[in-house]
Amino acid sequence: MTATDLAIIGFGKIAREQHRPALEASSAFNFAATVDPFNTAEGIAAYKDVTTFLAERPEVGAVALCTPPQVRFAVAREALLAGRHVLLEKPPGTTVSEVMTLQRIAKEQGKTLFTAWHSQFAPGIPGARDWLSDRKITAITVTWREDVRRWHPGQDWIFAPGGTGVFDPGINAYSILTYILPVGLYTTEAALEFPENRDTPIAAQLKMLTEEGAPVDLDFDFRETGVQTWDMRIETDRGVMELSQGGATITADGEVLSAEGALAGEYDRIYARFAELIAAGESDVDVAPFRHVADAMMLGRRVQTEAFEW
Amino acid sequence: MTATDLAIIGFGKIAREQHRPALEASSAFNFAATVDPFNTAEGIAAYKDVTTFLAERPEVGAVALCTPPQVRFAVAREALLAGRHVLLEKPPGTTVSEVMTLQRIAKEQGKTLFTAWHSQFAPGIPGARDWLSDRKITAITVTWREDVRRWHPGQDWIFAPGGTGVFDPGINAYSILTYILPVGLYTTEAALEFPENRDTPIAAQLKMLTEEGAPVDLDFDFRETGVQTWDMRIETDRGVMELSQGGATITADGEVLSAEGALAGEYDRIYARFAELIAAGESDVDVAPFRHVADAMMLGRRVQTEAFEW
Repeated sequence: MTATDLAIIGFGKIAREQHRPALEASSAFNFAATVDPFNTAEGIAAYKDVTTFLAERPEVGAVALCTPPQVRFAVAREALLAGRHVLLEKPPGTTVSEVMTLQRIAKEQGKTLFTAWHSQFAPGIPGARDWLSDRKITAITVTWREDVRRWHPGQDWIFAPGGTGVFDPGINAYSILTYILPVGLYTTEAALEFPENRDTPIAAQLKMLTEEGAPVDLDFDFRETGVQTWDMRIETDRGVMELSQGGATITADGEVLSAEGALAGEYDRIYARFAELIAAGESDVDVAPFRHVADAMMLGRRVQTEAFEW
Repeated sequence: MTATDLAIIGFGKIAREQHRPALEASSAFNFAATVDPFNTAEGIAAYKDVTTFLAERPEVGAVALCTPPQVRFAVAREALLAGRHVLLEKPPGTTVSEVMTLQRIAKEQGKTLFTAWHSQFAPGIPGARDWLSDRKITAITVTWREDVRRWHPGQDWIFAPGGTGVFDPGINAYSILTYILPVGLYTTEAALEFPENRDTPIAAQLKMLTEEGAPVDLDFDFRETGVQTWDMRIETDRGVMELSQGGATITADGEVLSAEGALAGEYDRIYARFAELIAAGESDVDVAPFRHVADAMMLGRRVQTEAFEW
């Protein structure tokens, strides 16, 4: 199989640290170009704007969008209409409706659209999903606490409208839950803490229910300077599952299902999946994690908290 | 065809003023019961709770849910699992995710789920949709200004989390737009005015784009004590369409497409559609209007404004 030429649009932190190494290790893709007004990759063709890139490089069949979400729709639409397959880094946009429209356009164009939720590709996730598939969920707690200054230093877009604040990491928890659970979830209460000088929440305490009425409590916080925690505890009618490090380490009833390092291979598996979708002529558009963020923001009670500065 | 026995669950203002007369005029349904802890309809069997009603009246094949949205999911799920067809008054719940789960349950149960957006059944809507179908949209303005004290007197649920505030009428505008336009829309900016003592916005100024980049400006306000306005102006490459009174009166290029009274026949057509869906064994679950509310609340900038009291 010939490798597909791929360009990374938006060559920031996640692109440099995760996408580039995964692409260079992939036999399915050839890292052909970057498109970014400022950043470039040594030895790789660089374009400053999308329109020029699309016009000059018709043979680059696929693009990975790693820009801030606020500009993603227009770029993704332009790429799809120019006949390219599109991978969307999470979150796939600033509104759920954008993604639904892109899904329709991808279908009309016969191109692949892939919403890549990296946490769904954490090492322990398939085992967790299997283990839960025939169990009844009785209670879930999710603790997702990290230091925004450490993981998103100076990234003001995260606190700008559309940046979703603490839901930027929290959406990873949603993406795991919606993927591994055998039942639907919905939010019933949300307390959203907005710093007085910012437009997105820095912390959220959420209550959800499974469709069968089991309680799901979520604690998202961007102000955690101590131990960084991305943990879930899922109680069932037959045993308890615990996920830590964002799904890298998983135990069920004390038995270890997975104990690889956090993030190990997530992006390798993402690109393998993207190649598989392109080969099959299919799309994989999963808006459920994003929908839970929108639901929480629609339903939530707003609490003003102290100003946040980097 | 035998009429289907139907119960109204939640017998408040909208149920008494719209659902009851439409049901009594319908040959497809027989108004068989009310389920409400307080309200009853003279001459109609009354139940105080849903579980008792479902147990005692297995022959009532359909229910219309007119409760406040905060309790709708649990009731709708219980009714579907008890084998009843379900009509959801707008909004269909407090989160989009609930509705997606109900859609799956209805499918599993082989029952009809119908999200009834009454504005989509306004007299001029089919003509408007036809007229727009082969035109290119170039600009849209929406003005939706009404007096909450007049239309929702004392209804505190509307300002409670999940009540969506000014989006309760605004969602009618979304339901018209998403139904009649031949292109997708997405929100790019929202200023949301929250009264300091309430949890949902009392006004919103919104900017959207069509997928092709045409501007859509929306002005929603719940504080309009003068002339009540529910108007849209849709500019296209071949003429201008104007909708007023929520879709009752529509002109295109000066020609009148529809000029019936506001609300005329909306609920008659809703029940005719529900009967049609039941007969065909289908569901009609349209979450697009609700998704735009969630998107605006996720994306929007929050502005605190003066306290609101009835």
